[in-house]
Amino acid sequence: MTVWNLTYDNYKPQEQGLREALCTLGNGYFATRGASAQVSADDTHYPGTYLAGGYNRLTTEIAGKNIENEDLVNMPNWLCLKFRFTGGQWFSPETATIVSYCQELDLQQGMLNYIIVFEDEQKRRIRMEEHRIVHMGDRHTAGMQVALTSENTDGTLEVESAIDGTVQNQGVKRYRDLNSQHLEVLESESTHDRPVFLKVQTVQSELRVAMSARNKITKQGKVLDLSPHLINDNGYVGKRYTVDISKGETIQVEKIVLVHTSRDIAISECGLASKARIRRASGFDSQLESHKLAWQQLWRRSDMKMTDRRKKRPDYHPEMVVRLYTFHLLQTASRQSINLDIGVPARGWHGEAYRGHIFWDELYIYPFITLQYPEITRSLLLYRYHRLDTARAAAKKAGYEGAMFPWQSSSSGREETQTVHLNPESGRWLPDNSQLQKHVNAAIAFNIWKYFESTGDIQFMNEYGTEVLLEIAKFWASIATYNKDIDRYEILKVMGPDEYHDAYPDADEPGLDNNAYTNVMATWVLGQALNALDILPVDWMKELCERLGITKEDKDLWWDISRKMRIVFHDGNIISQFEHYDQLKELDWDKYREKYVNIQRMDRILEAEGDSPNRYKITKQADVLMLFYLFSAPELRTLFKQLGYPFEYETIPKNIEYYVHRTSYGSSLSWVVHSWVLARSDRKRSWNFFLKALQSDIEDIQGGTTQEGIHLGAMAGSINILQEAYMGIKTRDNMLWVNPELPEVLEKLEMQVRHRNSTLAFETTQDSCKVTLLCSPSNIFTFGFKDTLYELTVGATRKFHI
Amino acid sequence: MTVWNLTYDNYKPQEQGLREALCTLGNGYFATRGASAQVSADDTHYPGTYLAGGYNRLTTEIAGKNIENEDLVNMPNWLCLKFRFTGGQWFSPETATIVSYCQELDLQQGMLNYIIVFEDEQKRRIRMEEHRIVHMGDRHTAGMQVALTSENTDGTLEVESAIDGTVQNQGVKRYRDLNSQHLEVLESESTHDRPVFLKVQTVQSELRVAMSARNKITKQGKVLDLSPHLINDNGYVGKRYTVDISKGETIQVEKIVLVHTSRDIAISECGLASKARIRRASGFDSQLESHKLAWQQLWRRSDMKMTDRRKKRPDYHPEMVVRLYTFHLLQTASRQSINLDIGVPARGWHGEAYRGHIFWDELYIYPFITLQYPEITRSLLLYRYHRLDTARAAAKKAGYEGAMFPWQSSSSGREETQTVHLNPESGRWLPDNSQLQKHVNAAIAFNIWKYFESTGDIQFMNEYGTEVLLEIAKFWASIATYNKDIDRYEILKVMGPDEYHDAYPDADEPGLDNNAYTNVMATWVLGQALNALDILPVDWMKELCERLGITKEDKDLWWDISRKMRIVFHDGNIISQFEHYDQLKELDWDKYREKYVNIQRMDRILEAEGDSPNRYKITKQADVLMLFYLFSAPELRTLFKQLGYPFEYETIPKNIEYYVHRTSYGSSLSWVVHSWVLARSDRKRSWNFFLKALQSDIEDIQGGTTQEGIHLGAMAGSINILQEAYMGIKTRDNMLWVNPELPEVLEKLEMQVRHRNSTLAFETTQDSCKVTLLCSPSNIFTFGFKDTLYELTVGATRKFHI
Repeated sequence: MTVWNLTYDNYKPQEQGLREALCTLGNGYFATRGASAQVSADDTHYPGTYLAGGYNRLTTEIAGKNIENEDLVNMPNWLCLKFRFTGGQWFSPETATIVSYCQELDLQQGMLNYIIVFEDEQKRRIRMEEHRIVHMGDRHTAGMQVALTSENTDGTLEVESAIDGTVQNQGVKRYRDLNSQHLEVLESESTHDRPVFLKVQTVQSELRVAMSARNKITKQGKVLDLSPHLINDNGYVGKRYTVDISKGETIQVEKIVLVHTSRDIAISECGLASKARIRRASGFDSQLESHKLAWQQLWRRSDMKMTDRRKKRPDYHPEMVVRLYTFHLLQTASRQSINLDIGVPARGWHGEAYRGHIFWDELYIYPFITLQYPEITRSLLLYRYHRLDTARAAAKKAGYEGAMFPWQSSSSGREETQTVHLNPESGRWLPDNSQLQKHVNAAIAFNIWKYFESTGDIQFMNEYGTEVLLEIAKFWASIATYNKDIDRYEILKVMGPDEYHDAYPDADEPGLDNNAYTNVMATWVLGQALNALDILPVDWMKELCERLGITKEDKDLWWDISRKMRIVFHDGNIISQFEHYDQLKELDWDKYREKYVNIQRMDRILEAEGDSPNRYKITKQADVLMLFYLFSAPELRTLFKQLGYPFEYETIPKNIEYYVHRTSYGSSLSWVVHSWVLARSDRKRSWNFFLKALQSDIEDIQGGTTQEGIHLGAMAGSINILQEAYMGIKTRDNMLWVNPELPEVLEKLEMQVRHRNSTLAFETTQDSCKVTLLCSPSNIFTFGFKDTLYELTVGATRKFHI
Repeated sequence: MTVWNLTYDNYKPQEQGLREALCTLGNGYFATRGASAQVSADDTHYPGTYLAGGYNRLTTEIAGKNIENEDLVNMPNWLCLKFRFTGGQWFSPETATIVSYCQELDLQQGMLNYIIVFEDEQKRRIRMEEHRIVHMGDRHTAGMQVALTSENTDGTLEVESAIDGTVQNQGVKRYRDLNSQHLEVLESESTHDRPVFLKVQTVQSELRVAMSARNKITKQGKVLDLSPHLINDNGYVGKRYTVDISKGETIQVEKIVLVHTSRDIAISECGLASKARIRRASGFDSQLESHKLAWQQLWRRSDMKMTDRRKKRPDYHPEMVVRLYTFHLLQTASRQSINLDIGVPARGWHGEAYRGHIFWDELYIYPFITLQYPEITRSLLLYRYHRLDTARAAAKKAGYEGAMFPWQSSSSGREETQTVHLNPESGRWLPDNSQLQKHVNAAIAFNIWKYFESTGDIQFMNEYGTEVLLEIAKFWASIATYNKDIDRYEILKVMGPDEYHDAYPDADEPGLDNNAYTNVMATWVLGQALNALDILPVDWMKELCERLGITKEDKDLWWDISRKMRIVFHDGNIISQFEHYDQLKELDWDKYREKYVNIQRMDRILEAEGDSPNRYKITKQADVLMLFYLFSAPELRTLFKQLGYPFEYETIPKNIEYYVHRTSYGSSLSWVVHSWVLARSDRKRSWNFFLKALQSDIEDIQGGTTQEGIHLGAMAGSINILQEAYMGIKTRDNMLWVNPELPEVLEKLEMQVRHRNSTLAFETTQDSCKVTLLCSPSNIFTFGFKDTLYELTVGATRKFHI
């Protein structure tokens, strides 16, 4: 096994879902929000692809009412191919015997390979060697190449190549009672002289998808002129070829598929577009060349090289997992999805869980993307900008000003969060108050500002970014209430990131007061909104304030709140997760660990016992600690000082200790945050948390959730530990700062980043760090190392001792 | 009459078309390429709006074959409103008597106003005072407010407010034999408790458009609770209200319409989106406020103030016409159409002529837009980028490399130029070879480079601009052929901008050799492509060259061609429009002027006489002179020197004299170019050409073509005379250069421009020029005045003597 390939060489049906979830190929192409290749429910071998719509609100679904946004929609299965000896059973894991099996995701080339030897009931054996790609340089193209060798039989082989529009949403077991039929067939065509064609429409959003597929079958390099049996059966459309094969002989099948949707630009109609493009599309080998080049260019920039003392153990491969995570990140937040009006869904485009919704996970995803492909971040941020109007309407409806973005967002930008959810432990449907997580609005503002710091993209701020930032500032200023008894502003009845706490014990109404994370973030947003007014040319700023109705009174209020927001403390300098947190009970962790072994989902356990996590000092995921993840100590010190609160040297380590011990890791993001915040104070523990974060999807440590979709925030967050924590690369005050400190186990860490159109290479060991300026538009680059500024000219390297 | 209003206070049916063409309101919103409000054929009072598709190739239309791209499509008429006394005739110009009439386009507020007193057969009089807007700050909204006063009658008034989806393409007489039905009704709804709703689909491109309309009827400030008659008749859907009215009483009708299309982003489905938005849309007064603010902000930047010695004459109003042109430009290349995948159609979105196609007219349009709203230019340039792949396929099919953009472009980016056209003079259908105008490819490259010079937008160049530029360079390098006898490169069998010449007299095949304009532009493009390789960060450039397969050999070839392109001269230093131009006959201009009076379309006249313009030294529009329009004398001197050709001081004036005398002004663009090139050498003639350019649409000097759509290139070009020629503002070598020289008749000229995010104000008189830096992100701005560089700090003014 090389560190570039994720290989499974042994077939276990029960692990198939996980395997396929991790071996998806995609390019974030489709539809209202994007998609990737994925295993469809009906055919475990052949990736379909997702369309994203919105969410069938469970309540309306149950009541049979009108549904506005549909669920994430499975794309027609485009690389659908099967084969059998005439009269025999299809060679597939379900119906044939698997003699040998090797599945390999080639991360470097972005190719999924299978070598499988099947045997049918009559003991006839076929060796299948398959390569498939979803083109990384062309969002409209996918292709596959399959070599079929008869190992022991002379016979007649039937090869069926199809596009399958009968796919349904069946990927998440607990959603299966919901409507899963989201495609309607509009047009299908299988003829002798033209490519196979299918045009479907999503039932509710009326998005149209057209696919054209061309097959080529060769034997010994000669194209066979076959007269296939034509299949056109209610959305399953294809051609079945019959080919004589002798023992030892190989048949080569090649398939190229071209897809267009009704949201594509630069076309007249999607069906015509896919037909026109398949006519001029080149063959598999040529497609593979350009596809490989695209991945080669991505890896040239994005590969993080880790030299690791412990490398020798065969079951230990952090570098490969980092590559796997990078791979999934690059195909979800893809260069091919720029301008597609998509955000980054929490579960990638890899599974149906969370229905493709966009949460706050972007906060974990952007740091890596922005320092490598800022143009992708720009496009993803526009997903929010284009939903600003809906967010304004939501704020207005809730009695606030400005814009209030939803906790779960999809195509239309309205709130998509479910209002009830199922506890599988108790079988009970419970109220879901997670839309009280208003902190998503701070994350959006934070992401915009960080993008600007990294890129200096004043055009983006002029046209889009500042408007969103100011509208979010208005929202925070209006949700904050002034408590004149203490001369402080408060934010009441919200939820922080920790979803174990949505109400005070035995309270009638949901919501908690003065969540520290929320209040600090709101403070930061208001301060940054005031700063933003200064970065734009005066005339633009004037126009924007006129349009948004921002007055001097608004700015004065922002200033005032950003000096007087309330933060609650207990036990000295422990930042209370929320007001009265200190009055909650401590959990008897040992008791529950003993009883349940896996206590990641303590909320479900407690609810099933008739208890509630709201009563305890336990945390599903980082909440207060998020502050240390997002801000440096000096930044926090400034913020707290501005608010008139003490912030001592011990504040950070004490709070880390306090909360790390009270966390159940019910969210995959906690490993990331905890590794990150411990990176300097406890390198060994940090590294162990990092390894835990690397396991989360590859070993599916949350028990089956990976096959419902990868955990993209955790994946990106893991990579970001290398970048921001260990290499110590952060942007601050429009400048790139470096402050590396490797875990003991790492000998060397290497990576590149891009900042304001300059590219830098970093190579850090335990005692030194080399920084090279690879290129820069201005030929010179200024950056900070620890606390000092340095200059580099293009091509120059500077070595620092650590 | 103020200089802000275009007013007609007297109704002449025969002038109605021109009036309406000039009084359209729109915002470049709709569809595959954009649209604006426009008078539909069925109802001369009430604007519909255009969708743009493509062109029914005349030949396929005639043959009844499959049509890929449909014609420009009329939007449903959304501000459809009519009224009558019960039992009487509708009050409209067609069916009622007009007692008094005043129509006014308020340019400052972007509002179209009518005050009309109608009288029906029973002598009942209604005074209608109407205001209508298409919202300039919100692409989804239009509204109208109508006050109806009964002047002499107590009676019952019927007011019918509808959305009319039965519109057809009937705007251009000579197209009426083509298919004109482009909309299919999908859904329509008129109920008592909900807004009127219509959803249609374009027949071929399957673009969906949904509109929701809400009415409010008030009397003396009180909303009337009326129970309307519901109308839902095959795509005409509305409500008819019956209201009692007494003599002297006024009824106020208000209508707000919300539109969404299936190409809109951030929605689930367009019907639901329009229904959701109409529910939360504010009333007319509030919409008007934000609409006016949008126009106020536009005018604050874009108004050019001319103080003119001759101002007193009532029929002389150049400043108003400049505003009218600015108004049309800003609503066609609108901030509201950013990111809509649209280009700038030659005839605006104002009429059906040229079917919404995109030509090279952008070349005249961008200089003004880029120095005011570079974000609009960026979006418009992306229209080309997104069709790069189709342009590559076209080049390949024609045997060339790189990308060959079409002469006429529409939604899919394929060549849409007709292959035959009708000469109305002779009634004959003639071959149309205008797709040989490959020079459009040079214009696209030129536009990209100029945008970069003005903005320094390296991100745009990184992601889009450079790729287009390099692919166009590859095209020129492959179409150029090497003539070893003279050691020169040639471009054979093409057409220059002058459409009177498409072949040599009596030649079997179309095309001309070595068109000077084309060859110089190709030379410039190749040189600029080599420069472009240097402006990008090295790693990006490397990636791009890898993807495009650009090698050292390519670059060497580009260098070689840009030193050895052939230009042909005759009569000393006259640049031959094309090779052997000198052998053509001189036309007897006086003879034809006497015979035909208007000889702008000499091509049609000669063809009707059995002759051909190909035989004469006559020019429909600027061709060689375009070079002096696009390049400064020093730039041309450098280019010619690089090619090893002489370029003396006299070259420019001699060529101007030569070609101005041989031009028939068959294109509205010629007045612009000729005014421009004479701006310094003959200020009086320049000013007269400028006035002619200002007449072209407002007086419809081409005889009826304005009502088929405005001439946007001529409009923008006219404004650009003020900016580039008289104020002398040009970008060169990434710097802004100023060199003003006003025509004698102008006392003062004032304007603002934006360059690299800085805003400057200019005020020039006959003997001085004041430059003020209004704002700048870097607080200091360097610019060139004549040949010297100067610096300004924000707020500072510098006065120059001229």
